[in-house]
Amino acid sequence: MVSIYDIAKAAGMSAATVSRALADNPKISRASRERIHRIAEEMGYRPNLLARNFRQKSSSMIGLITDDVSDELSGMIAKGVEQALREHGFTMLVRNVHHDSDNEQEAIDYFADMQMDGVILADSTLDALADVPMTKLPFVLINRYCSAEEPISIVCTDDFAGGYDATEYLIKLNHRKIAFINGPEDWYSSIRRLTGYTEALGKHDIEYRTDYVKHGDWFEDSGYRLALELFRSEDPPTAVFAANDMMAIGVTDAARECGLRVPEDVSVMGYDDRTIAKYARPRLTTISLPMFEVGMMAGHALCEMIATGQLPDGKSERLLVRGQVIERDTTSQYMAKPTIAPEPTQDFNK
Amino acid sequence: MVSIYDIAKAAGMSAATVSRALADNPKISRASRERIHRIAEEMGYRPNLLARNFRQKSSSMIGLITDDVSDELSGMIAKGVEQALREHGFTMLVRNVHHDSDNEQEAIDYFADMQMDGVILADSTLDALADVPMTKLPFVLINRYCSAEEPISIVCTDDFAGGYDATEYLIKLNHRKIAFINGPEDWYSSIRRLTGYTEALGKHDIEYRTDYVKHGDWFEDSGYRLALELFRSEDPPTAVFAANDMMAIGVTDAARECGLRVPEDVSVMGYDDRTIAKYARPRLTTISLPMFEVGMMAGHALCEMIATGQLPDGKSERLLVRGQVIERDTTSQYMAKPTIAPEPTQDFNK
Repeated sequence: MVSIYDIAKAAGMSAATVSRALADNPKISRASRERIHRIAEEMGYRPNLLARNFRQKSSSMIGLITDDVSDELSGMIAKGVEQALREHGFTMLVRNVHHDSDNEQEAIDYFADMQMDGVILADSTLDALADVPMTKLPFVLINRYCSAEEPISIVCTDDFAGGYDATEYLIKLNHRKIAFINGPEDWYSSIRRLTGYTEALGKHDIEYRTDYVKHGDWFEDSGYRLALELFRSEDPPTAVFAANDMMAIGVTDAARECGLRVPEDVSVMGYDDRTIAKYARPRLTTISLPMFEVGMMAGHALCEMIATGQLPDGKSERLLVRGQVIERDTTSQYMAKPTIAPEPTQDFNK
Repeated sequence: MVSIYDIAKAAGMSAATVSRALADNPKISRASRERIHRIAEEMGYRPNLLARNFRQKSSSMIGLITDDVSDELSGMIAKGVEQALREHGFTMLVRNVHHDSDNEQEAIDYFADMQMDGVILADSTLDALADVPMTKLPFVLINRYCSAEEPISIVCTDDFAGGYDATEYLIKLNHRKIAFINGPEDWYSSIRRLTGYTEALGKHDIEYRTDYVKHGDWFEDSGYRLALELFRSEDPPTAVFAANDMMAIGVTDAARECGLRVPEDVSVMGYDDRTIAKYARPRLTTISLPMFEVGMMAGHALCEMIATGQLPDGKSERLLVRGQVIERDTTSQYMAKPTIAPEPTQDFNK
């Protein structure tokens, strides 16, 4: 590998001069700098970033701590963070912590030891946020809720708006009996989505019914079981909103088992817009979870923090990113069923 | 941040002694070493890895170059690589190159400049493998086919075995008319899978029919269109094997459109075992693509290469990882149709 000593020899200058010239130090004349850059290029010189980082006490790297990058949603966060960092000239180092707070603490320590310029913590499992600032590194949290007094930058998806928008979309399709299969009761995202659901019902003067609100565990089977209860009840809903796509697919299974057609007899709506929503049959209407945008915003916020040495406004800030309704084939306008079966008529749709 | 000078002051020793003691240099007495470790711990000292790496001319990091880590299969590779590296005490730095050879070359240069200990190239887009060794870094290729003379370590999924196993599985279900919707004709994986399909047919004395072999573009719609051609032909197949899960889901759509039940009237089989295969209805029988294992093997191979300074046997090696048949609901035993419709009989399955 070509070193600055080789360049110095070729240029007939000292290594110190070459080093300053390559760093575009104005103490070296412009003509000399240009000459040395040209020689360096001709000789195929590559800077030793590790040495440069050591001198600058900066790695030009940012650490991303995430649950598991092979999961679609974590992967989208990583992709968004990477894109933002690239624009600011930083590189991303990823550590998966697999929902284990020991792993997470170890990853934070590692990033501190590596003198990362900053850290982004996505889906943190640490109990106390107080554990985080001990890294002494600039950091941004993703999808974390806390009431810390310290100035902390947090980027989240807007769960309230997601719950609200999904419910209002079903109301606009003329549904009044809208059940909600939510995530576990104590998850912050479940609480916010339920508030959105409740508020949308209230705005349209629709009664909130406790028998229409259930809590699943995010897995397909819970959506299936809870939907069976709903469909077999005395007053079944005409639409079911599930808090993720896996549970929504369980709901469509339950509908099939009860002889209900989706969307003709019952509308089904998911949340997250995972790839499975596009490949479900019928294709699933859902709310997008804009994790790529969340990653981008977190990356930009962190780079700005590093550049200025402080949070933009010197106090805690929470950036909310809103998803949107992705209309597909599991939802349709509610048509009140006639009480007496009509004579068979010609089907003009055929 | 606590430095070794602070520890030296507290211990009443020179910084050099502290530095040697923390590195467990046997020139320092065991008692002193233990005492200094204790003081360092009490003072909350953390080693500066960046400085250590610079001194050791090693980053203890390995670069992974991949297409896009937010894609499920790339994500599994990354997860496997990370797990292997962790066992060897290395950390992974990921760069997504989004199928762009300029990005890839830039990422290789970056990793070289960072003095990474090695690089893993997954799904490389570089035309000439000759571009790679210029990094002067130990490297392992994933899913890359080449006939280079140099000793190169490559880890691949076994596409021949995948094509063979899928076809043989359908033959064992008594199918004789098995169509194959392959990937693009010039992809190496398509060529290998076709060879596997052909060999399995030959072994069971089943004629190879050119009208049963089609080439899609990996996307759902191509599976749909090509399957329509097959189902509407004079002598339609009783089973369709598609070279990925997206195309297989297109095949089930085409079957539905032709009034064919899956699997009663036609069996459908995919490849890759993506998450969508589990969420398709009916659930898709497929061949697993063991990308996690591939990542693990590549990680272990690279770490061994770094430790020994050479390939295990000093020559090129290709490690093949075989997937397996994942049986779900889109395939069943072929029953020859009676030529005269039988009288309706009681259905004992109800």
